[in-house]
Amino acid sequence: MDKEQIKEEILGMGAKARVAAHALAVLDADQKNAILRAMANGLRDRADEILDANRKDIDAGEANGLTEAMLDRLRLDSSRLEAIAVGVEEVAELPDPVGEVLDSWTRPNDIRIEHVRVPIGVIGIIYESRPNVTSDAAVLCLKSGNATILRGGSEAIHSNRAIASALQAGGESQGLPEQAIQLIPFTDRESVRVMAGMDQWLDVIIPRGGKGLIEAVVSQARMPVIKHYDGICHVYVDADADLDMAVAVSEDSKVHKPSACNALETLLVHRDIAESFLPAMAEAFSAREVEMRGDEQVQAILGSAVVPASPEDWDTEYLDMIVAIKVVDDMAEAITHINQHSSRHSDCIITKDDQQASRFLRMVDSACVYHNASTRFSDGGEFGFGAEIGISTDKLHARGPMGLRELTSYQYRIRGSGQTRALCATT
Amino acid sequence: MDKEQIKEEILGMGAKARVAAHALAVLDADQKNAILRAMANGLRDRADEILDANRKDIDAGEANGLTEAMLDRLRLDSSRLEAIAVGVEEVAELPDPVGEVLDSWTRPNDIRIEHVRVPIGVIGIIYESRPNVTSDAAVLCLKSGNATILRGGSEAIHSNRAIASALQAGGESQGLPEQAIQLIPFTDRESVRVMAGMDQWLDVIIPRGGKGLIEAVVSQARMPVIKHYDGICHVYVDADADLDMAVAVSEDSKVHKPSACNALETLLVHRDIAESFLPAMAEAFSAREVEMRGDEQVQAILGSAVVPASPEDWDTEYLDMIVAIKVVDDMAEAITHINQHSSRHSDCIITKDDQQASRFLRMVDSACVYHNASTRFSDGGEFGFGAEIGISTDKLHARGPMGLRELTSYQYRIRGSGQTRALCATT
Repeated sequence: MDKEQIKEEILGMGAKARVAAHALAVLDADQKNAILRAMANGLRDRADEILDANRKDIDAGEANGLTEAMLDRLRLDSSRLEAIAVGVEEVAELPDPVGEVLDSWTRPNDIRIEHVRVPIGVIGIIYESRPNVTSDAAVLCLKSGNATILRGGSEAIHSNRAIASALQAGGESQGLPEQAIQLIPFTDRESVRVMAGMDQWLDVIIPRGGKGLIEAVVSQARMPVIKHYDGICHVYVDADADLDMAVAVSEDSKVHKPSACNALETLLVHRDIAESFLPAMAEAFSAREVEMRGDEQVQAILGSAVVPASPEDWDTEYLDMIVAIKVVDDMAEAITHINQHSSRHSDCIITKDDQQASRFLRMVDSACVYHNASTRFSDGGEFGFGAEIGISTDKLHARGPMGLRELTSYQYRIRGSGQTRALCATT
Repeated sequence: MDKEQIKEEILGMGAKARVAAHALAVLDADQKNAILRAMANGLRDRADEILDANRKDIDAGEANGLTEAMLDRLRLDSSRLEAIAVGVEEVAELPDPVGEVLDSWTRPNDIRIEHVRVPIGVIGIIYESRPNVTSDAAVLCLKSGNATILRGGSEAIHSNRAIASALQAGGESQGLPEQAIQLIPFTDRESVRVMAGMDQWLDVIIPRGGKGLIEAVVSQARMPVIKHYDGICHVYVDADADLDMAVAVSEDSKVHKPSACNALETLLVHRDIAESFLPAMAEAFSAREVEMRGDEQVQAILGSAVVPASPEDWDTEYLDMIVAIKVVDDMAEAITHINQHSSRHSDCIITKDDQQASRFLRMVDSACVYHNASTRFSDGGEFGFGAEIGISTDKLHARGPMGLRELTSYQYRIRGSGQTRALCATT
């Protein structure tokens, strides 16, 4: 297929998605939940087809020399597929965000205004190799009343197609509008470029994957993009900290899951407690085999246990068992450092002084700011959202952990009795 | 100046704006209001300079052959300047959106989560010729705790510079952080291109102006853009409408201010009442000298009073005393037409049937949907927001009339007592 044909086909999918979105927007919660349960069963009914398709992806991956870790992310088996189906059923159990009246008021001229939560419309999801994203993303979008256009990576194309068809076919048995869940059959860059340009059909794009993918979407997109960039997260240990707590929270933030975006990367320590705190912290990190990179003051205290930090360390997301450590003069320096180097994801202060903590929380410009708790709690599940489509590092529309509410927009519904501006203006 | 120097200078302004934004974010309402009142007085103190600068713009505009309408938009005098200053004082009187706790809850592991409204950070405003936008936009951004980088049109460059300096200087006397309000001294396209690329410094761009300007920003911007595109607004007169009300609301929606984005462009009429309604409507429109363009059924009823409509009429924002009129078979056809041709701004149904109206409001995918009231009420002032930065035709972040709240983001503030994910996960 040449570029023009690819473009035409994807634009056609966009137009169909818009029609599906209008039909989805008026389904009530019971209808959507019945559809979701039918979608879960759709996955079960077509398990053989999905696993066969996955086998093709695995064979191709092996032939193309994918690493074992990559193959493992790609691989499905009956129990993994059942887990995906159960995930769909769990989303059916969540409350429906659509239709919630956020606010309502009556104006002096007696027009009544309702501010109501509605679906966004059509959501584009661009992702890489994990086939479970096909189901997870489509299902959260559907629960919030949106149509989806999915564009997965080439490694998982057979699995993704089989999963998307199973979801759509299963859902249609309970009234899912046609083309509510569509998978783009192309995996080249051109398909991303076309999606990024079709702002008449896609209301938002959510890229899920590495920095290169997000960057490609951001630089091309005409519509809003909700980004999940990196997490350069900080813990600042204040002069007044409970040092045992500081060790425990810093250790957890670093080692509980170092590959997560909410993991600690840079530890900042007030100079007044550096000498008492750092040896205890170093002992805990060493026991977990965390590499420490320190500035000169940290080196002076910890000696050869620490590697000298270079300026780039303050801007690095290690996603690994490595931590950068810096001594600061006071909280103001810590805040300045964080606001300059943090990716505005999750940052923490450890202190016994509540007022000091409140100032820190107010002054640090990050999505999630913590007092005396691990940065690892930045998570839709831990926040109680029930489901998570990601953790936004943007400041507009959605910031931090994104649940179903963040997949909605709003609308003003105004009811009157014939008011005109000429006769009934209030301003 | 060459391109590289322009770029360097604008990027430098971005970095300074970020510092200012962090300082602004922690000012309380009283501090900001004192600053705003000082800014109003800054305009009064420098009235002579501002009016002299405006004289230069007017002279240049006359030399360049601007129309009288354009010159009038550009022109300032003492009373217009005083109105701008009073506008600043009025913003000081509005409630501060920053710091509002939107929600708070405690998780089973006893971490307490607060969802708090915070400023966005740095807002870029790109606008065309009206110098009052310099003040109006900067002041609304400031009240909501944001720094601004303004880039106005070349016609008003002297006026804009003088106004921005007067606001900044006046505000600094009451503690406004340096560089909180900056005006880009360049008015070429390159300056828009640089702004659109600096997503490390600008959190959002709001273009205020014609479609060409918005399009240029959308196609280049790496950061979110809040758009105020056109308003192709509809009134649908249902079979069950009060016909006098239908005439009054349609007339008001069309003629009260035809140049506004919330003005009626297309009138849809249920076929069952077309013969009784259209002659009365036509009489009202004719009395106001509104040109009517109708489909075949309208022509059959109104004869030579109506011009035949072409397909483009259904997609045209006239912004003028012209209305397109179409007869539809039923509400479903009206909704399909609206969802296909509306710019998703403001659309209305006139009917006595509340259930029918509720279905219409739910099914029409527009920012503001009306039952028995003029579309002209889509306005921040009429909604009771106290101020308006525009009417967003986007669905993400801000939709419909945008007040101070829509110039804010949010942050999660989490307080614990040493909780770690390893020991206290709840999911």
